[in-house]
Amino acid sequence: MLQLEVKIAAAKVAKYATGESGDTLEVIERPRGGLSLVLADGQRSGRAAKAISNIVARKAVALLAEGVRDGAVARAAHDYLRAIRGGKVSATLSILSLDLVTETIVISRNSHCPAIVVQGDTLLMLDEPSQPVGIHTWTKPLITELPLVPETYVVLYTDGLMHAGRRYGAQLDVPALVRTLLHEEGGAAQGVACDQGRPDDDISVVAVTASLAPADADVVRRLSIDFPVRVKRGC
Amino acid sequence: MLQLEVKIAAAKVAKYATGESGDTLEVIERPRGGLSLVLADGQRSGRAAKAISNIVARKAVALLAEGVRDGAVARAAHDYLRAIRGGKVSATLSILSLDLVTETIVISRNSHCPAIVVQGDTLLMLDEPSQPVGIHTWTKPLITELPLVPETYVVLYTDGLMHAGRRYGAQLDVPALVRTLLHEEGGAAQGVACDQGRPDDDISVVAVTASLAPADADVVRRLSIDFPVRVKRGC
Repeated sequence: MLQLEVKIAAAKVAKYATGESGDTLEVIERPRGGLSLVLADGQRSGRAAKAISNIVARKAVALLAEGVRDGAVARAAHDYLRAIRGGKVSATLSILSLDLVTETIVISRNSHCPAIVVQGDTLLMLDEPSQPVGIHTWTKPLITELPLVPETYVVLYTDGLMHAGRRYGAQLDVPALVRTLLHEEGGAAQGVACDQGRPDDDISVVAVTASLAPADADVVRRLSIDFPVRVKRGC
Repeated sequence: MLQLEVKIAAAKVAKYATGESGDTLEVIERPRGGLSLVLADGQRSGRAAKAISNIVARKAVALLAEGVRDGAVARAAHDYLRAIRGGKVSATLSILSLDLVTETIVISRNSHCPAIVVQGDTLLMLDEPSQPVGIHTWTKPLITELPLVPETYVVLYTDGLMHAGRRYGAQLDVPALVRTLLHEEGGAAQGVACDQGRPDDDISVVAVTASLAPADADVVRRLSIDFPVRVKRGC
């Protein structure tokens, strides 16, 4: 048996001056072991987008928590959004699962945004075209299954990151950024520059890393969340 | 408007030599703003306990994600567990919500474990007796609502922590520990000593802190997870 440390880091920021991000990011335990990460980006921005991505993400989360396989979860999220919104609104949906039964990382994409995978010296762009959920008939996800081995890195993001800087003629090269960050301490989803501090769209980034645990590692699962809020009521 | 930083730190460890913790801890976004934390501790330990806490937690998470109010969520989780397991198994359930509509922290307890609240100089033990879910008729939660103001600290835990050290005649004084940790940098849920490294029960601890954001704080939400895993397949 090999002891691995899987670390997940995610960051989410709203489009400048909208307050609420239209992206929804959720993590849920898999009942047979492991966890799943769900990232949905609703069409439009602000409250309207949030309502759409919430529908998709919570359907996915509810099914994943019941042990439903990932491919069926993505299909169900599509069918559900299409049924209740009449095929008129779309969302992108990415699911990343750490499946301890198969000992794999499973990536399901219904998104035009690539997923970036680094294993050892190989950088792989998962960028085959896949349809967003909610619009067409029989939409299904593109699924990639990777062995859960040390030195595996996966980065997912929504199109706010893909297009970041476009307005300023300085589009971000995400794969190049990932290569750079991998060589920096803790260089995960945090600290990504975005549109000169005024994001042009909702941006979410998720990074997952699997590495050999040090000999003195414990088996405690840890979760930490930073959640900035604005309140009217004061001190 | 006041900018606050809400931080959540949680740690979860399985009973020694069982592998799988019987506790389930989930976090979900509230559709109208904010997030909810669900902590369920299933009767018994290992896989059996996990199956029970999973039923309770995923029912709660599914409803919270739909915007159902916390009191109704706890009642529904109870009714559901009782219905499908015939009133024969119990679980404790705690829900902590950061509700941005009411600007409050809402704590719903169906647990014999206290919640500890510190606001300013006041330490408050929420320890009125409340029933676990799954067994009796019409079980409902005890609900406490706190204003979301700076310098608020809330700690929740399962009974593995309450009873930690009991076997070694050195029971942990959790409220005293909380007081001590509050005065230490980042002294949240992390690093709690447990039964000489061999936990006698599943242990989960959640700490939530709300404080004034520094002037240069960003509005990026961040999530980070450490998830140690054992795999058969190797390098």
